[in-house]
Amino acid sequence: MCQIELVAIGDELLKGMTLNSNVAFLGQQLLRLGYRVSRQTVLPDEIQALTAGLQEVFKRAQVVIVTGGLGPTCDDGTRQVVADLFGEPLVPSLEVREDLIKRFGQTLESLEDQVLQPKSGVIGLNPLGTAPAILLHRGDKTWILLPGVPREMQAIFAKWVEPWLRKRHPITNVMQSRRLSLHSLNENQIDPLLRELQKEFPQVEMGIYPGYGTVGLAFLSASDKELLACEARVLQRFAGYVYFSPCGTIEEAVHAAMIERKMTLCLAESCTGGRIAAQLSRLSGASQYLLGSSVVYANELKEEWLGVHKNLLNQCGAVSREVVVAMWEGLMARSHADFGVAVSGIAGPEGGTAEKPVGTIFAAVGRRGKTPETQHLFLERGDRETRIQTATNCLLGALHRVVVQGLPAF
Amino acid sequence: MCQIELVAIGDELLKGMTLNSNVAFLGQQLLRLGYRVSRQTVLPDEIQALTAGLQEVFKRAQVVIVTGGLGPTCDDGTRQVVADLFGEPLVPSLEVREDLIKRFGQTLESLEDQVLQPKSGVIGLNPLGTAPAILLHRGDKTWILLPGVPREMQAIFAKWVEPWLRKRHPITNVMQSRRLSLHSLNENQIDPLLRELQKEFPQVEMGIYPGYGTVGLAFLSASDKELLACEARVLQRFAGYVYFSPCGTIEEAVHAAMIERKMTLCLAESCTGGRIAAQLSRLSGASQYLLGSSVVYANELKEEWLGVHKNLLNQCGAVSREVVVAMWEGLMARSHADFGVAVSGIAGPEGGTAEKPVGTIFAAVGRRGKTPETQHLFLERGDRETRIQTATNCLLGALHRVVVQGLPAF
Repeated sequence: MCQIELVAIGDELLKGMTLNSNVAFLGQQLLRLGYRVSRQTVLPDEIQALTAGLQEVFKRAQVVIVTGGLGPTCDDGTRQVVADLFGEPLVPSLEVREDLIKRFGQTLESLEDQVLQPKSGVIGLNPLGTAPAILLHRGDKTWILLPGVPREMQAIFAKWVEPWLRKRHPITNVMQSRRLSLHSLNENQIDPLLRELQKEFPQVEMGIYPGYGTVGLAFLSASDKELLACEARVLQRFAGYVYFSPCGTIEEAVHAAMIERKMTLCLAESCTGGRIAAQLSRLSGASQYLLGSSVVYANELKEEWLGVHKNLLNQCGAVSREVVVAMWEGLMARSHADFGVAVSGIAGPEGGTAEKPVGTIFAAVGRRGKTPETQHLFLERGDRETRIQTATNCLLGALHRVVVQGLPAF
Repeated sequence: MCQIELVAIGDELLKGMTLNSNVAFLGQQLLRLGYRVSRQTVLPDEIQALTAGLQEVFKRAQVVIVTGGLGPTCDDGTRQVVADLFGEPLVPSLEVREDLIKRFGQTLESLEDQVLQPKSGVIGLNPLGTAPAILLHRGDKTWILLPGVPREMQAIFAKWVEPWLRKRHPITNVMQSRRLSLHSLNENQIDPLLRELQKEFPQVEMGIYPGYGTVGLAFLSASDKELLACEARVLQRFAGYVYFSPCGTIEEAVHAAMIERKMTLCLAESCTGGRIAAQLSRLSGASQYLLGSSVVYANELKEEWLGVHKNLLNQCGAVSREVVVAMWEGLMARSHADFGVAVSGIAGPEGGTAEKPVGTIFAAVGRRGKTPETQHLFLERGDRETRIQTATNCLLGALHRVVVQGLPAF
């Protein structure tokens, strides 16, 4: 199996200012393609230490992917150091110049820096930023340089890095992979099944990727039959909680289903504070089904914007089954959406009481013309952010059950 | 300055199943104490590759902190490999045995494995799990082994690692740091000033951390005077765009200001889809000032929820100065908030026209009782996510200007 070393460059990583999500992304993607990451190294921006570190990698490794240090600022030295390792100069690239001028205009300040590329480098244009990907290949050494901005790096990976690797280091014993995701369950609920499967199918590599209110599973094997068997077993055990989506997020699955079924959706969010709407609306095409969200953090807005009665708020409290039903009814009366979700809860760390501790969340989910289904989610563990994100994903999961699977929401 | 190498051990890190938050935690803590992380390395569990990797580190580095691979399972080999590097055997530790029996009982399955420690190792008991911290010190080499579970590692760090480091590697020349952030500007606009400052203050370490609509700056030096001079120059040049916040986000700065000034805020979000509300409400205490957000993605909700006239929408289009002013007015009429923000735009990739291309965004920001200020933000670059996030941060920045600095919003 082809082994790849990852190198990330940047003082912000060493200082702990930034989580190194790039190596996690690359590790997952490379595993999926059948490659294996043998080591990760993080090096500083400072040229001397960077040079010493990259020289060690150069001696040791054959295939190397480097992220970061390709920017135009004075502390970005990756291109120069790697060009030196390959013993070649930096020269202006016409291709990069044309692309940058087309996208940013002649006046781009960093233009003259960013067009300089290692002489034999193959360029992979960056659709989002100014630093292209570069492939250097000589003898048994393949180095790929990528920008450090995660979104740029990810866009480039699919477009350039996959084909570059496949061409120069074809995987002979291609591993197939199956990915699926589960919502509203946690790692501990799924782990026993995975252990069973691992005993039964020792040749299948299995990965479990816990999120907030979602868990991703990956099966990797040369045998398609074994993969399908694993997938079938997960579906059999957890049918109503399984979804499939390109990046493993539940919002993608809901988004695709709403568009396909030409349904519309409206939200009434208290404790999630707009997170459900924000998560759906980041996906292109959300305006086809997402009418909007009434984010009613304050009780006065629950009354004024959704018509929840003051008496009900006083009697039952804003975090109650009765109030989320009233929010849902007010929402459906104030929109023409086919589906509605209303949620109110105590995300913490403050605001809890003995009767309603932090983590108490009520939700109503339903289709126009039917009685909404309600649920009391109790998200005891974690912090504020964990609770908001878990509630958001669980409610998108509930919507998935209703819209896609025709099941009860909870 | 004492340089420290960090090593993390575990296949789950190489496969991208887990984000390496331990190195970020250690990087931040060590920087705070005056140490510097010179490199991070992630190695696999497999003994041969682990041994080869740790041998390289042993040759190169003086002070090393290793996380992970201390557990009782067969793939946890850190203690054995490091004991071999120091040329000493693993022997049972009475101290660890007593502690584990006290906390977990005689029947702990992994007891006999977990009591084995390098002979000269100094033990730091783990208050939460079964693997203690170990300090090995010989000649100029100091190695500290820590468990990989973040909560355990963090608890041990304060209790053992800080005092161990302070005793064996006292910091003589403590570095001070200043951090500040800028909104509504990009890296290229700030870089020229940084280059000037770097020439003028060659002893000051400078870092620039671009975000979406925000840029972080860090200055590090032994001289407080030079740090203050650098900060003053940034303030002088970019006064109206500078903010200070613990994690460098603009929402923290707005959040703190709103609470301190006892002001309230309401939002009307179209193209940001609830992102502004979601970003503020993730901060604890947001309910003190954030009344809510009317996320009016569909035009019918702009009419029904905010009272924007159909004629105006037809004449000017939903993405126009006129409509965001009407949204702002409707919002202020439907809430008692002190400040309001309304935004409408084309986040793309679809929906652009020749007259209003993708990236066209209009916003209105203002205080109750005053005419709102409006702005046409044109966010040409990047993708949908970049535009939504940049617009969100720029509008929080506009709010910061108005609320904190008493400046025009734009």
